[in-house]
Amino acid sequence: MRIEILCTGDEVLTGKIVNSNFSYMSQKLEDVGLTVVWGTTVGDDRERLLEAFRLAAGRADAVIVNGGLGPTVDDLSQEIAAKAAGVELVLNQEWLTRMEDFFTRRSRVMPPNNRKQAMLPATAEILDNPIGTACGFAVDIGKARFFFTPGVPRELRRMLEEQIVPRLLAKAGRAVTIHLKRFHSYGLGESHVDTLLTGIEEMSPDGSIKLGFRAHYPQLETKLLVRGSDMDDVRRKLAPVEAEVRKRVGNFILAEDDQTLEGVVLKTLADRRHTLAIAETFTGGQVAARISHLAGGEHVFKRGIVSRDLAQVRASAGLEASAGPATVDAAAEIANAFREKSGASHALAVLVDLDEGADRIELGGTIAIAISTQAETVTRNARLLGGREWVRLGAVEMGLDCLRRFLQGLPVDEKIDFEKK
Amino acid sequence: MRIEILCTGDEVLTGKIVNSNFSYMSQKLEDVGLTVVWGTTVGDDRERLLEAFRLAAGRADAVIVNGGLGPTVDDLSQEIAAKAAGVELVLNQEWLTRMEDFFTRRSRVMPPNNRKQAMLPATAEILDNPIGTACGFAVDIGKARFFFTPGVPRELRRMLEEQIVPRLLAKAGRAVTIHLKRFHSYGLGESHVDTLLTGIEEMSPDGSIKLGFRAHYPQLETKLLVRGSDMDDVRRKLAPVEAEVRKRVGNFILAEDDQTLEGVVLKTLADRRHTLAIAETFTGGQVAARISHLAGGEHVFKRGIVSRDLAQVRASAGLEASAGPATVDAAAEIANAFREKSGASHALAVLVDLDEGADRIELGGTIAIAISTQAETVTRNARLLGGREWVRLGAVEMGLDCLRRFLQGLPVDEKIDFEKK
Repeated sequence: MRIEILCTGDEVLTGKIVNSNFSYMSQKLEDVGLTVVWGTTVGDDRERLLEAFRLAAGRADAVIVNGGLGPTVDDLSQEIAAKAAGVELVLNQEWLTRMEDFFTRRSRVMPPNNRKQAMLPATAEILDNPIGTACGFAVDIGKARFFFTPGVPRELRRMLEEQIVPRLLAKAGRAVTIHLKRFHSYGLGESHVDTLLTGIEEMSPDGSIKLGFRAHYPQLETKLLVRGSDMDDVRRKLAPVEAEVRKRVGNFILAEDDQTLEGVVLKTLADRRHTLAIAETFTGGQVAARISHLAGGEHVFKRGIVSRDLAQVRASAGLEASAGPATVDAAAEIANAFREKSGASHALAVLVDLDEGADRIELGGTIAIAISTQAETVTRNARLLGGREWVRLGAVEMGLDCLRRFLQGLPVDEKIDFEKK
Repeated sequence: MRIEILCTGDEVLTGKIVNSNFSYMSQKLEDVGLTVVWGTTVGDDRERLLEAFRLAAGRADAVIVNGGLGPTVDDLSQEIAAKAAGVELVLNQEWLTRMEDFFTRRSRVMPPNNRKQAMLPATAEILDNPIGTACGFAVDIGKARFFFTPGVPRELRRMLEEQIVPRLLAKAGRAVTIHLKRFHSYGLGESHVDTLLTGIEEMSPDGSIKLGFRAHYPQLETKLLVRGSDMDDVRRKLAPVEAEVRKRVGNFILAEDDQTLEGVVLKTLADRRHTLAIAETFTGGQVAARISHLAGGEHVFKRGIVSRDLAQVRASAGLEASAGPATVDAAAEIANAFREKSGASHALAVLVDLDEGADRIELGGTIAIAISTQAETVTRNARLLGGREWVRLGAVEMGLDCLRRFLQGLPVDEKIDFEKK
């Protein structure tokens, strides 16, 4: 099945906004085993929209159109859809009532121009939008089924998942259940993990498991796409393979599926009724900023200090305000003192000694990390190479991941691919 | 002149990476008065690339192709360009030498597969890439001029600005100089600034100034696109108009052109040899993270503290560790105490009292800001409505902007559009 995506709108075409809806849709379809083969972007222009609809209709089996369903005069999707399909635009009374209710529930009167959003091609099938006034719909144009979606990301996401993906899977003749299992790791590069997982797809002899990756430094996402007759079948096929992935990637897996590194750390601390203090230097508040604002963070995160001047960090932790190199000993001393001063059960210190000179790709930084509790103090030393931002991102991730490892009883000083050996 | 952009690569098509190159190129062209009318995205697939090249060649005057110039087997742009142009692929000795030098300067030997990057369509004109091995080139396909660019963003940016924009302007017959003047503001919405600037384009009677906006919450960018016969002409036309923009948008302008809010604050403090301490709560380290890591930040930013528990913030600032509401009086007391304790000349306190309950669009937060120096203490109180992230972003921006206003001798408590009156 050939699927295309057609994004509309002057704001996307002129680059006023980055088109993250496209990558969202494309990825979501990949995740259920469907492949987008062509993307088109045009502005709010009748002639070009019609041209784009006709070209896609001549090539594709299914086309997802995004944007142009709003109430204003430059929202043209329904009008051009009707024209391309060769049918009339008609008022959909059902959607009009839905919209009026939508406004009534918010104690507002529906503005007259919203009525336009209920004008649909005569042959359209409604795609429900429970959280907005833009009415999604599907209609045949040429040999292709067109799915029209709103530009507002949260409305698009819900409609794609609940309305469009099931229809596309049915159209593709997939009487199967598709499930995506995800593992998040830090410290191993994509090709390294790919090598570690050699032969993993072959564990499922009928080819029902597909391995994929998504790298977004500093983290790597490893994906297993599983097909089965139903969810029980999927679970049965996945069980031995996911166990093998956990075994091979091991300590480097920091979270799975919708979990995040900071979420795992926060939850582990919260479950044990522990609290956290963070001292940091060049990371500039970013370690604290990953965890402190989260829901529930107010019960776990006690206090953070940040300064690029080690004497200031020491003073804030209740130590003598002397300078010195950012060694693991310094980190340990700071973590211990700051834990006592803040009254937290755990303290994390992340110190960075950035190389001198202008920002460049061969720059580097030495990272010293310490984690202190009443019972023990553990440390980690590493040297990262790369520009200022690269070093900073790496130091934030390494600091949080060391804490995750410590809380899970794993070694905190396991070497990673990104550090200089 | 009809310009199209054609993005290639499986990673972009499948949504593994968000296509920010597209919005960058489109916006850059808008900024010099050129308009992109069509965008296409295809994967690393010979047949579809050829189809996309031929379609664009039949429609456009100029096409910018992004990606596919690398050394690996899935980089197909040169090969398909030659095929579509009906010419041979030939080795460009000049570029081969350039690449060999590139590796030699880095004390490395060029891998054999990089040779592929010097294979260009016989009729190609080289577009220089001084910072990479991917060779840009221009070639005619059908009635259109195609410009081939690398996928690496920094290489693309340089090639677009230095090589392609001048060629496109020449092709468009614009014997003119184009200049983009930008103003960054915080606190006024796009439609509000648009209204404030009514009639601004008409100040230049020959229509040589065009007004535009780019909103990226919390900031708004106001753009003046100026055309003139040369840079002197541009400056003469721009001078009265930019003065008028400064007058009308006034105190809300926080920076111009390539300046940033945090850069302006940092530079002002550094020029006066002042230093800064920052205390924050729900912003979770984000205020400090905007300024502390910047080059030169190590001389200005003394110390930051963060906690969602006001008693912890008070204790860190050297006050009695008592809780209480996040009022401006509390912010002032913390800023004063923390300034003295840290030894900084200036202290900024940004306290947020977030509404209770689950995250939702009708959530809100009360912001209390104080700035303390030896001579005086000023405060600002505001109520922002919106989800958790919206309140957090707004509080970070308001804190830094209050400091900017204070340093520039402007009122810190001027009401903004985003706060509840």
